[in-house]
Amino acid sequence: MTTILAVDAMGGDHGPRVTLPACRRFLETHPEARLLLVGGDEVRAFHHPRAEHVPATEVVAMDDPVEVALRRKKDSSMRVAIQQVKDGRAQAAVSAGNTGALMALARYLLKTVDGIDRPAIASPLPNAKGGATTVLDLGANVDCTEQHLLQFAVLGSALVSALKDQDNPSVGLLNIGEEMIKGNEVIKRAGELLRAAAAAGDLNFHGNVEGNDIFKGTTDIVVCDGFVGNVALKTSEGLASMIGGFLREEFSRNPLTKLAALVGLPVLNAFKNRVDYRRYNGAALLGLRGLVFKSHGSADDFAFGQALARAYDAARNNLLDRVQARIAHARPLLTGSPADAPPAEAVASE
Amino acid sequence: MTTILAVDAMGGDHGPRVTLPACRRFLETHPEARLLLVGGDEVRAFHHPRAEHVPATEVVAMDDPVEVALRRKKDSSMRVAIQQVKDGRAQAAVSAGNTGALMALARYLLKTVDGIDRPAIASPLPNAKGGATTVLDLGANVDCTEQHLLQFAVLGSALVSALKDQDNPSVGLLNIGEEMIKGNEVIKRAGELLRAAAAAGDLNFHGNVEGNDIFKGTTDIVVCDGFVGNVALKTSEGLASMIGGFLREEFSRNPLTKLAALVGLPVLNAFKNRVDYRRYNGAALLGLRGLVFKSHGSADDFAFGQALARAYDAARNNLLDRVQARIAHARPLLTGSPADAPPAEAVASE
Repeated sequence: MTTILAVDAMGGDHGPRVTLPACRRFLETHPEARLLLVGGDEVRAFHHPRAEHVPATEVVAMDDPVEVALRRKKDSSMRVAIQQVKDGRAQAAVSAGNTGALMALARYLLKTVDGIDRPAIASPLPNAKGGATTVLDLGANVDCTEQHLLQFAVLGSALVSALKDQDNPSVGLLNIGEEMIKGNEVIKRAGELLRAAAAAGDLNFHGNVEGNDIFKGTTDIVVCDGFVGNVALKTSEGLASMIGGFLREEFSRNPLTKLAALVGLPVLNAFKNRVDYRRYNGAALLGLRGLVFKSHGSADDFAFGQALARAYDAARNNLLDRVQARIAHARPLLTGSPADAPPAEAVASE
Repeated sequence: MTTILAVDAMGGDHGPRVTLPACRRFLETHPEARLLLVGGDEVRAFHHPRAEHVPATEVVAMDDPVEVALRRKKDSSMRVAIQQVKDGRAQAAVSAGNTGALMALARYLLKTVDGIDRPAIASPLPNAKGGATTVLDLGANVDCTEQHLLQFAVLGSALVSALKDQDNPSVGLLNIGEEMIKGNEVIKRAGELLRAAAAAGDLNFHGNVEGNDIFKGTTDIVVCDGFVGNVALKTSEGLASMIGGFLREEFSRNPLTKLAALVGLPVLNAFKNRVDYRRYNGAALLGLRGLVFKSHGSADDFAFGQALARAYDAARNNLLDRVQARIAHARPLLTGSPADAPPAEAVASE
């Protein structure tokens, strides 16, 4: 079965210089994949038997406000790529462009799935078990209600089950230390909702987790509001970058330490590979009636290739169907859009 | 001038086994310090010309609920240590005990300073500039208002000015990515308040920062609500621990990598020292009418000594007076307790 991805070849900090080499390598390693490469002349010049050029005359800049992407640049590569998904010509879209614009366009063009109020951004982070912990939301939604957190749990479960062939991935609710005042009101009510969902067989709810559990790998999925998730993600990036910098500095301090680095090079490289954030590139925009994946804006061709591979796996493993199935199952607990949602008796007592 | 610290010698995971050796070393390196060592018989057996035993018959366990610490164990070492501060016999109290209990007892016995609604927990984290970024709140307060965030900024500025001899430390407001929906309503209003405080000369407000700025060292102080701060802290601890584990694993994989580790040992140790969280032990409970410092429960004697040193520096550098002075100055913007606070005209338009 052929899987077709629509690629915003113009997006990201580097545009076609990064996206096109990544696409070529992706096509070589994925013989059943086809790509729709959306963009201008540079993209038209790319030739491959399983790639097709889709013209787009505009580009959403990394600093364009959402309004510009939505209302002014109607022929942007980002928009046209998502339109391919909407029109059924591609099973997923991938872009390294501006997150806010991508989310807004995806939401506007694709709409959210019944039962889901707001789409969420989910990304895997490496964990000490050698696997990855999928965290959501990473910044699409600030000020979440307990309903949103439940929706994230359902969406995250569908994503992990599609990408990792895990039927019943475990979900943790991000909270703060045992010894502290435990969480705010929203978190407490979310815990009740998630327990109800687990009791109904809709989720594998582990319970509360703390920040360190993300990297411990205590659960497959960690659910939190977008503000907290974004802070956790960026804080981690900052710490990893500082530690990497310190390590480099110490090993390049003098001839003796440089020699030590030379001796230790294979080990240091093996270490570097294990914590290489590029391997985890490719965040899913979940809860939409179509698949959209977001690459880091600064991704190089290896990292962008990872985002392509993740989108491809999600499409092949029917992520959309899995989302729908899980939502249908959890429907009595979900009070999300639209008006035709059944009354949520189970939540009425909250 | 002699500075006197009251030490809860029974607190923490290890109790006197860790606190007493740390106290001895502290006394050796701080010839103008005196210690009041609070605890039972084990503590009585400690002798030093500048140490005095203060008996306490009970210990707050690490898992005791706040209610037990407050209402049942009225002769706990933790409580008696704080009482020394209240009674003016010590200038600061240090405990490695249960955070929730310590905060509750400190608040109950010492009360908050006029203009401050809730005490906050502040701790330094290492940054890429080789210094430290002080982050607050780290978990004492979930569900903060913009007023609380302003209060944290004032308290954090007083702390850093006392500990680092920096008159006008810079303050960042923790927010999420530029490209995302920027922050929630509380953060937006807090930004306005902080800008007003900066305009009035009360604060050196840098503006919004993101999670990665904590470790970059963009500002001296990062202000956030206790939920977000606790998640950022714990996430960082989890990541640092994972990275350390990976590094150890890679270097102990086989005889060759072990040899590389041997060659690289001095470098790896220098690196380890730079990211050693123990150096940053000693969180301040700020906003109270007395100084209380919290050590990690799992601290070893080196780490506990760092907490003692931090409390000592804060006391010697008149942290309490600095807090009072900064609050007095920022008073028109602070609408915090008590009833005698002047009306906050500057905030009325919010």
